[in-house]
Amino acid sequence: MRILLIAALFSCSTTALAADPLPSWNDGDTKAAILDFVEAVTTEGGPGFVPIAERIATFDNDGCLWAEQPAYFQLAFSIDRVKALADDHPEWKTTEPFKSVLADDLKAVAGQGMKAVAQIAMVAHADMTADEFEASARDWLNTAVHPKLGRRYVDCVYQPQLELLSYLRANGFKTFIVSGGGIDFLRVFAEEAYGIPPEQVVGTSIKATYELRDGVPVIIKQPELDFVDDKAGKPVGIYQHIGRRPLLACGNSDGDLQMLQYTTIPRNEEDDTPRLGILLHHTDADREFAYDRESSVGRLDVALDEASSRGWIVIDMAQDWATIFPE
Amino acid sequence: MRILLIAALFSCSTTALAADPLPSWNDGDTKAAILDFVEAVTTEGGPGFVPIAERIATFDNDGCLWAEQPAYFQLAFSIDRVKALADDHPEWKTTEPFKSVLADDLKAVAGQGMKAVAQIAMVAHADMTADEFEASARDWLNTAVHPKLGRRYVDCVYQPQLELLSYLRANGFKTFIVSGGGIDFLRVFAEEAYGIPPEQVVGTSIKATYELRDGVPVIIKQPELDFVDDKAGKPVGIYQHIGRRPLLACGNSDGDLQMLQYTTIPRNEEDDTPRLGILLHHTDADREFAYDRESSVGRLDVALDEASSRGWIVIDMAQDWATIFPE
Repeated sequence: MRILLIAALFSCSTTALAADPLPSWNDGDTKAAILDFVEAVTTEGGPGFVPIAERIATFDNDGCLWAEQPAYFQLAFSIDRVKALADDHPEWKTTEPFKSVLADDLKAVAGQGMKAVAQIAMVAHADMTADEFEASARDWLNTAVHPKLGRRYVDCVYQPQLELLSYLRANGFKTFIVSGGGIDFLRVFAEEAYGIPPEQVVGTSIKATYELRDGVPVIIKQPELDFVDDKAGKPVGIYQHIGRRPLLACGNSDGDLQMLQYTTIPRNEEDDTPRLGILLHHTDADREFAYDRESSVGRLDVALDEASSRGWIVIDMAQDWATIFPE
Repeated sequence: MRILLIAALFSCSTTALAADPLPSWNDGDTKAAILDFVEAVTTEGGPGFVPIAERIATFDNDGCLWAEQPAYFQLAFSIDRVKALADDHPEWKTTEPFKSVLADDLKAVAGQGMKAVAQIAMVAHADMTADEFEASARDWLNTAVHPKLGRRYVDCVYQPQLELLSYLRANGFKTFIVSGGGIDFLRVFAEEAYGIPPEQVVGTSIKATYELRDGVPVIIKQPELDFVDDKAGKPVGIYQHIGRRPLLACGNSDGDLQMLQYTTIPRNEEDDTPRLGILLHHTDADREFAYDRESSVGRLDVALDEASSRGWIVIDMAQDWATIFPE
């Protein structure tokens, strides 16, 4: 009898502790929909049950796991690299787009289009070994501070999403990043920031080669685009890299539209496995940023229109999140 | 007291059961080296200890996890597909390389070089949806029988390697395939045959695209090479796909040379983490096949010469393996 009592006490306290796996999410329809979905796919014997091996969740990164305004953080990294390397490249003072970068005239850079942005990115990402790249990105991530949010970029991650990732993993999900950002840049911080290991990061890549340099193996990052993991590239990246259709996909912009379609649209009439599409709507100008249909960074327009007909959850950041960033 | 006795009995029986994790491996230097390595990297507090997250093991597939003689099994699949589709392509009767395939003149096909082989492979792998490809490969793998070994191709896997994969996983390793074979072909059987999930398969790939077809998402496999995961491509594939240097790599041919270099060669004088390179030497003409330096399929020549100076283990199939195939 005493043992039973103690067992009952333990049982209560465990339930109390486990009661809210998403403490930074306000109670409401959004949080309830997520909890209901996870319960459905993990309830053995239930109609929606999915074996652990098939519990794949894919998350966009920029604007979904960490902030992306006023410009993608990886662009800030690239610009800082150009500045840091400028002494070794006197020709940049008179050559675009570097001239405008060094003059802090980002409007002029943007005016030169995608080719200019790619040139800047290549300076920061190519013509070096993988180890050299990793060291330079790690150094920047350890120190660089967001101009408006006043905290390191790596601390501009969303606390509610950290909780969602942990909650999914605790329920047998394998969590992946599927981002338009650079795969190698992401891998430098994804494990520490999100608990997502390098092998579960899918992103945009440049080509690479292998050689023995003075007898030591090196990977050399080449200044040539390999794969663009954005828009229709996201389902392709998932197919090539993961090889399994996700059970849950979360994004925040039109760049995630196809990933959410690929994840959630039934393939035929027998395809009734529960699948969840989630869009994060940036509605919080006070605590973060508010933007959607007109934004040049992270535009959310077509996907927002498609959300209701597809049954995707739309997170209203201002309303659904009690906290935005970790303490 | 009685409880202690029972505990002691249980403890003994557990030890006895766990005594030999590699029962199909004969006792000897090879087996001992593998067991010693795994003990070194998993002994907490020991000088060679490696955290679980970094325990990555990569295995070649053809001739390493399953047989590859007299021709790569995926080529047999491609040839069977050409034959199966021939009725819909009357022009093949007079067009090479299909004419030679339909005449069962594989020598004539080989004489037409790599371009002919690629043409045959594309018939079997491209211009269809991912689901259509998977269905055709699954159908073939379920039924096709190896001409000499007299068992289904999927049953031509090596029992000792199945045990090694399980043993590594039981010790916290994540096991990957890194193969020159097609990534999508491998994924159809790797999970069932080896316990390796799709997201842990790295291989040669062709390009793919995404579209909504009658409102349903499809991935379409394109007749264009994307990435060749062989020779110097293997370290690149590991870098792009896994993003971590393996702790153990196992191969059987010169196509694996660079993967073994990349895995085992120290990067600098401080780099003293134990790492293991393993080569499977096909020495068993009675039970499987015997081939190495002169073979056109799975040639093992340069890597065999390099093995002793690099400290790679060479499995002598005839001597080290008590069993070759599962019962």
